[in-house]
Amino acid sequence: MQPAADRRYVLTLSCPDRTGIVARISGFLADAGAWIVEAAYHAEPEENWFFTRQVVRADSVPFDADELRARFAEVAAEFGPETSWQVTDTAVLKRAVLLVTKEPHCLHDLLGRVAAGELPVQLEAVIGNHEGLADIVRAHGVEFHHVPFPGPDAPDRAAAKAAAFDEVRKLVDVHDPDAIVLARFMQILPPELCTAWAGRAINIHHSFLPSFAGARPYHQAHARGVKLIGASCHYVTADLDAGPIIEQDVIRVDHGDTVADMVRRGRDIERLVLSRGLRWHLEDRVLVQGNKTVVFH
Amino acid sequence: MQPAADRRYVLTLSCPDRTGIVARISGFLADAGAWIVEAAYHAEPEENWFFTRQVVRADSVPFDADELRARFAEVAAEFGPETSWQVTDTAVLKRAVLLVTKEPHCLHDLLGRVAAGELPVQLEAVIGNHEGLADIVRAHGVEFHHVPFPGPDAPDRAAAKAAAFDEVRKLVDVHDPDAIVLARFMQILPPELCTAWAGRAINIHHSFLPSFAGARPYHQAHARGVKLIGASCHYVTADLDAGPIIEQDVIRVDHGDTVADMVRRGRDIERLVLSRGLRWHLEDRVLVQGNKTVVFH
Amino acid sequence: MQPAADRRYVLTLSCPDRTGIVARISGFLADAGAWIVEAAYHAEPEENWFFTRQVVRADSVPFDADELRARFAEVAAEFGPETSWQVTDTAVLKRAVLLVTKEPHCLHDLLGRVAAGELPVQLEAVIGNHEGLADIVRAHGVEFHHVPFPGPDAPDRAAAKAAAFDEVRKLVDVHDPDAIVLARFMQILPPELCTAWAGRAINIHHSFLPSFAGARPYHQAHARGVKLIGASCHYVTADLDAGPIIEQDVIRVDHGDTVADMVRRGRDIERLVLSRGLRWHLEDRVLVQGNKTVVFH
Amino acid sequence: MQPAADRRYVLTLSCPDRTGIVARISGFLADAGAWIVEAAYHAEPEENWFFTRQVVRADSVPFDADELRARFAEVAAEFGPETSWQVTDTAVLKRAVLLVTKEPHCLHDLLGRVAAGELPVQLEAVIGNHEGLADIVRAHGVEFHHVPFPGPDAPDRAAAKAAAFDEVRKLVDVHDPDAIVLARFMQILPPELCTAWAGRAINIHHSFLPSFAGARPYHQAHARGVKLIGASCHYVTADLDAGPIIEQDVIRVDHGDTVADMVRRGRDIERLVLSRGLRWHLEDRVLVQGNKTVVFH
Repeated sequence: MQPAADRRYVLTLSCPDRTGIVARISGFLADAGAWIVEAAYHAEPEENWFFTRQVVRADSVPFDADELRARFAEVAAEFGPETSWQVTDTAVLKRAVLLVTKEPHCLHDLLGRVAAGELPVQLEAVIGNHEGLADIVRAHGVEFHHVPFPGPDAPDRAAAKAAAFDEVRKLVDVHDPDAIVLARFMQILPPELCTAWAGRAINIHHSFLPSFAGARPYHQAHARGVKLIGASCHYVTADLDAGPIIEQDVIRVDHGDTVADMVRRGRDIERLVLSRGLRWHLEDRVLVQGNKTVVFH
Repeated sequence: MQPAADRRYVLTLSCPDRTGIVARISGFLADAGAWIVEAAYHAEPEENWFFTRQVVRADSVPFDADELRARFAEVAAEFGPETSWQVTDTAVLKRAVLLVTKEPHCLHDLLGRVAAGELPVQLEAVIGNHEGLADIVRAHGVEFHHVPFPGPDAPDRAAAKAAAFDEVRKLVDVHDPDAIVLARFMQILPPELCTAWAGRAINIHHSFLPSFAGARPYHQAHARGVKLIGASCHYVTADLDAGPIIEQDVIRVDHGDTVADMVRRGRDIERLVLSRGLRWHLEDRVLVQGNKTVVFH
Repeated sequence: MQPAADRRYVLTLSCPDRTGIVARISGFLADAGAWIVEAAYHAEPEENWFFTRQVVRADSVPFDADELRARFAEVAAEFGPETSWQVTDTAVLKRAVLLVTKEPHCLHDLLGRVAAGELPVQLEAVIGNHEGLADIVRAHGVEFHHVPFPGPDAPDRAAAKAAAFDEVRKLVDVHDPDAIVLARFMQILPPELCTAWAGRAINIHHSFLPSFAGARPYHQAHARGVKLIGASCHYVTADLDAGPIIEQDVIRVDHGDTVADMVRRGRDIERLVLSRGLRWHLEDRVLVQGNKTVVFH
Repeated sequence: MQPAADRRYVLTLSCPDRTGIVARISGFLADAGAWIVEAAYHAEPEENWFFTRQVVRADSVPFDADELRARFAEVAAEFGPETSWQVTDTAVLKRAVLLVTKEPHCLHDLLGRVAAGELPVQLEAVIGNHEGLADIVRAHGVEFHHVPFPGPDAPDRAAAKAAAFDEVRKLVDVHDPDAIVLARFMQILPPELCTAWAGRAINIHHSFLPSFAGARPYHQAHARGVKLIGASCHYVTADLDAGPIIEQDVIRVDHGDTVADMVRRGRDIERLVLSRGLRWHLEDRVLVQGNKTVVFH
């Protein structure tokens, strides 16, 4: 349980930039008696767009989150119809569903972080197209669903795959999750799922994008002889490995590293990058602008 | 010359925290028509102290910097007598003086950066206790002053050293510099200079402080067998290598690195850390709180 | 099961340096038909000491590991009585025992890595002075033993603690482990255990040693205002947090990070540093020289 | 002047791999009485190729470098006709020529490092297609040659450019340099120069290759919204920005960084990456294999 003193309301907003937005928002919050504990702003000069994230102590505001939303809606309306905003309440845990295949390292890492209380999330379910990871998921007290996917030589593969994705979608959507995490899922989401889960589906790609998009990035990296390998956490869009990047990082490799070494060593960076990106998403630190992200951390 | 559109007024302020400060400041700026291009806040819960840095386009304000200061003084007065604030104008270049001895790498790096337009500073003078670096300083069009310091076996060493520091002080103070940079100066400033130059004297120490303060830090690091070596840029105080840290960084070493290798490789990190710390100081990004810094970058 | 083609013999040796050691060893290996896949050397000029690690394909040698040891013993004898060496066989898994308390993150990470096949080790048992982590350990199919330790106000605390350590020692020694990992165990080993487990007991300390040894390193780091926090993996000696360092790393923090943030963020670096140090230890990459390590990676 | 005790002979060799090469080479060196101070090996399993770099104290060998070469030639001949090897003498300084345009930061950095004795090189000349950097080069006591290149709208541009490159080639080749450094030269070398200078022409590209090859990489990086920017030091080949990579590194950027910020901040990483790559080249640490490098550091 979150102590009452740690409960926060998190306001995020983006809108066309103009003079006075900060003053209007901070004036509104001051009038409400809100005690701001974090405040970040970004003005994008090229697009002339404004972004902010403000965190206030819930116990400093003399009404609840719904009332705060209702009152702030009037302020937001002043910034024009393109304005996008939300107020979240840290007392309401975000919900996540994970999609996995056989690769266990990102799953183990996220399960461990949730068990250790490091991620502010309710893990609703894990869906795998293989059964190998079911036991460890259930040992953590989380639902596991096995949805087999057709192999490369399956008859009527397209239809079988579509049916499998339909089942995945049903199993996911029942939880109305705030995050659908492709924790090395290795299946390309169909465009309609990319649309349905826009801004909520998060992938970890095992390269420093845009280098080595697509299949077997460590093989590509090895062939090119790069001196660093990386991982990228990004929102899933219909354009493969080309969605808005949330977080990236790299580690050094050298001529002695085989592809197998890169695969093993890359896991360290995949784990870190995915968990950081997911944390920031769950904390409402990530605002999407076109194909880029503003990350207030 | 800075194009008019790039001219900025930079407001920094720190004061006891309370509700409504952001609203008051942003309201003031909005009333003045100021177009905010950067805004950062920090609330320190333990000390209950508030810090902010705001950058506005000069051409958005219908009066000059002095008038902005005069008007803002009334706002600042509302935040209590402990409030500290300033408004600087990027059209007025900061002034710096460098103190050096024989070690050339930080000096070369800073001269190169100034020549390349990377640091917003007017380099007023370089003062060295050896003459070896005079030529390259003058080739960059900068004054060089040689102030010899007594060697370890000099007769009446304390008095000679005090006299040398008196001369250094005169040569520095004539420029009323915003930054006095000890670019591997290797002489310990007397307490009265630490006081006179408080918040302006910046040192680069070749270790990751607080490890290996004092003499021969690379020897200490080698003897301990650490796997990373570092450098720390900090404000000079009377307490040796213990002033507020502005910036630190490290690089990896291994068992194959001798002390000489560490000295050579450490230079890369000394250059970077000093130039970053100095840049942030010159851009009014560093606010001191007790023995710590808030760095808005 | 390790494929036969991946089986390796790993030879490590250290001895006083002199001309011809490399030739003698490589001549021996060539005569045996051994196919070298990795070879690393280090000569320490100050101590005049020589270190090497050689990895050969097991299937290139026409006899077994014991015979290789018997034959190499004659070579090693030529390098003098101070010579230290061993030949290990990657087909014989190393054994490890973990010591834990309540902090779960390093345990979760190591369990996940073992389950994912990332660490070449047989995890024999986990011993905890609290029971909270028992279930997840057992879910991974690993023994868990609960050995309660006396609290700070327990009567006859010294005796109770000694008794607890006696029990820990028995539970550990029955496995004759190659590694005893203090995965945030938070109890100071008594000197006799440091001696008994010398070169096998591995600790993770949550600071960039030698800074902030001892208790509450993140509090110390926060108070000093450092800009990076770190973790250090080291062999345990009777001198607290002062044993030979195997691996260290750091991450950036800033003025906005509270102690609680540092604790949370530091976990990422503790996990990485411990797992890297442990891996290198298990792969016979770490040779100890006095209070320092040679790490061939 | 290098002290006699610091003089080294550096042997590098690559050849098809087979058992016994290490034994043969180390046996040869032992017979010669050579005291090995560094030894590194790499066996590339895919290509079945062997690489080594051995450093011996010159004063431990009872004959000179030419005699060492003559004797070693017989050993190398045993490894087959594809064997490539050399023996260099650190008492003979390598020679370098730099090519520059207007961007000063890499030039300043290299001049500073040479002046500080950080790079083992004789800087023979700097050739620029603009005159702006002439003064600082000459202040460092180095020849500067101005070779104007035709602008984008110059009549008969191709011929003028070819003539300019002819002049550059003459000015370079007179020094028979070991390194031709394109220190942000920004002109694409014609194929015949790539061939003539193969393995000696070193470029710094301001991106983490293979991402953002070609023109305006920081603009490309900004448009894609990456969270790290990088630089790559590579040998120049006829295939633009696709030659063997010697070194790469990255730094973190965020949504607040404009293209201009990236350009400025990227300079830090360009300087470091170029100076590291050049140092390794000068120290004979870089062996090229196809389009990749083995770097023994």
